[in-house]
Amino acid sequence: MTSRHATAPTQFVESSGIRFAFRRFGREDGTPLLFMQHFRGGMDHWDPAVIDGLAENRPVILFDNAGVASSSGQTPDTIDEMAEHAADFIQALGLSKVDLLGFSIGGYIAQALTIWRPELIRRLVLVGTGPRAGEPPQDPNYAKYGGLTDPKTGQNPLEAFLYMFFSPSDTSQSAAKTFWARRHARTHDVDVSESPQTIAAQRAAITEWRQLRGERFAELKSITQPTLVVNGINDIVVPTVNSFTLSQKIPNAQLIIYPDSGHGSLFQFPELFVAHANIFLE
Amino acid sequence: MTSRHATAPTQFVESSGIRFAFRRFGREDGTPLLFMQHFRGGMDHWDPAVIDGLAENRPVILFDNAGVASSSGQTPDTIDEMAEHAADFIQALGLSKVDLLGFSIGGYIAQALTIWRPELIRRLVLVGTGPRAGEPPQDPNYAKYGGLTDPKTGQNPLEAFLYMFFSPSDTSQSAAKTFWARRHARTHDVDVSESPQTIAAQRAAITEWRQLRGERFAELKSITQPTLVVNGINDIVVPTVNSFTLSQKIPNAQLIIYPDSGHGSLFQFPELFVAHANIFLE
Repeated sequence: MTSRHATAPTQFVESSGIRFAFRRFGREDGTPLLFMQHFRGGMDHWDPAVIDGLAENRPVILFDNAGVASSSGQTPDTIDEMAEHAADFIQALGLSKVDLLGFSIGGYIAQALTIWRPELIRRLVLVGTGPRAGEPPQDPNYAKYGGLTDPKTGQNPLEAFLYMFFSPSDTSQSAAKTFWARRHARTHDVDVSESPQTIAAQRAAITEWRQLRGERFAELKSITQPTLVVNGINDIVVPTVNSFTLSQKIPNAQLIIYPDSGHGSLFQFPELFVAHANIFLE
Repeated sequence: MTSRHATAPTQFVESSGIRFAFRRFGREDGTPLLFMQHFRGGMDHWDPAVIDGLAENRPVILFDNAGVASSSGQTPDTIDEMAEHAADFIQALGLSKVDLLGFSIGGYIAQALTIWRPELIRRLVLVGTGPRAGEPPQDPNYAKYGGLTDPKTGQNPLEAFLYMFFSPSDTSQSAAKTFWARRHARTHDVDVSESPQTIAAQRAAITEWRQLRGERFAELKSITQPTLVVNGINDIVVPTVNSFTLSQKIPNAQLIIYPDSGHGSLFQFPELFVAHANIFLE
């Protein structure tokens, strides 16, 4: 095992007909921390400052869920099915318990997985995310930027991240560009881009997640794991009020909100986020 | 200088006709952290786990503001006048800049002082507090418990803290009793109790602070200091929504909300609070 993401080889494990791409790095011992990525994102789209920072104290595992980027299969169109694939992946690695960090749609999947298979999860970190039937985004340009694709890379471009993940301030925009440079440091053994099928299925799953199912927020009461909820003060993708709701309805949840930031607060304040997550996970 | 509160002697400094009682301990070097106490509270009412924890990395100063407990003079009946006395005290110690930790009414004074004398303040920690004209408490028993006085000590009794500062859960109530034991570890060179004049004047100042003055929350924009806002998830004394407001309106504010706790969250999670405050102050 390598200690840093830059040199962690992409590996594969097969379960229930899906060949899952993953990378494992960091410490050998301790509860692994499994990362669940945002809309359209794969393993290359985390911030090395965050994943390497957290890998100093524990094993870190990145993966592409079914159909996403380098993993085989179709991306399903519900969060529940995505959580089922994630459980398959965890078990295929032979892990009996993990810590979960879910960001954005990855946070929806992390909640669904924790509620459905609580025995697999020790602690939960939910970043830039919200509950089922939470408050939807109101920003008029949200859908436009989410749908942008750079013809050269086949991926969501910097322009979209500047608008959707960071605040309009000079400080935040400058942090975005620094993040973007860090994110592109790995140039070999990288993911293939997400497919149109993945984008369409993730959109459908997000739409389905916005629908009420039973009593609003009632399922959050069953998350008994210690939970850390994190967001920027003005998230236009998953409005910050959803983070307040998570922290109010999950019985043992701590809430941290960062200033002058949005959806990508963990990429704007990587050292601070790592410090807070380390305190929480230890 | 001693390194711990338990053995820090009460000292006095005079300014503008007030003889201020204070205690200074912890490291010799670094920006001092000045604590501003809650309603009816004096120097003996902090949690040693919090003040000694923070004193490991900086000088810590506790004081009784004008008229409170061991300090001479009358307690004024406005937050602005309390802030003026605090500025006198800081200058009487010959300090050009401090970090401020204001809890509850101490947080009101800390805001007023920071707005009025920004050059004196490096960083600001606001715990269990709220802005001018914030949301008032709705709890029907709030006033009753706040007014209770133990005839033996002349002070607000444990019963009031169990109700007002902690959540009703077994975990929180148990943490309250542990806090109470820590709080009473110092038995020599202690404060005299707060006077009826102080209680009445602080009540009047709190009432005045609830009144609107100019555009609601506009003055918070002028707090440019990095600010850490902390509360429990359900503060019935200064409702938690006020902490959200502070973090939204102060330009560079970070918000941390602790689970299953109330007004006295820093006394329920002293080690966690110290860890978070250390990260913020350093």
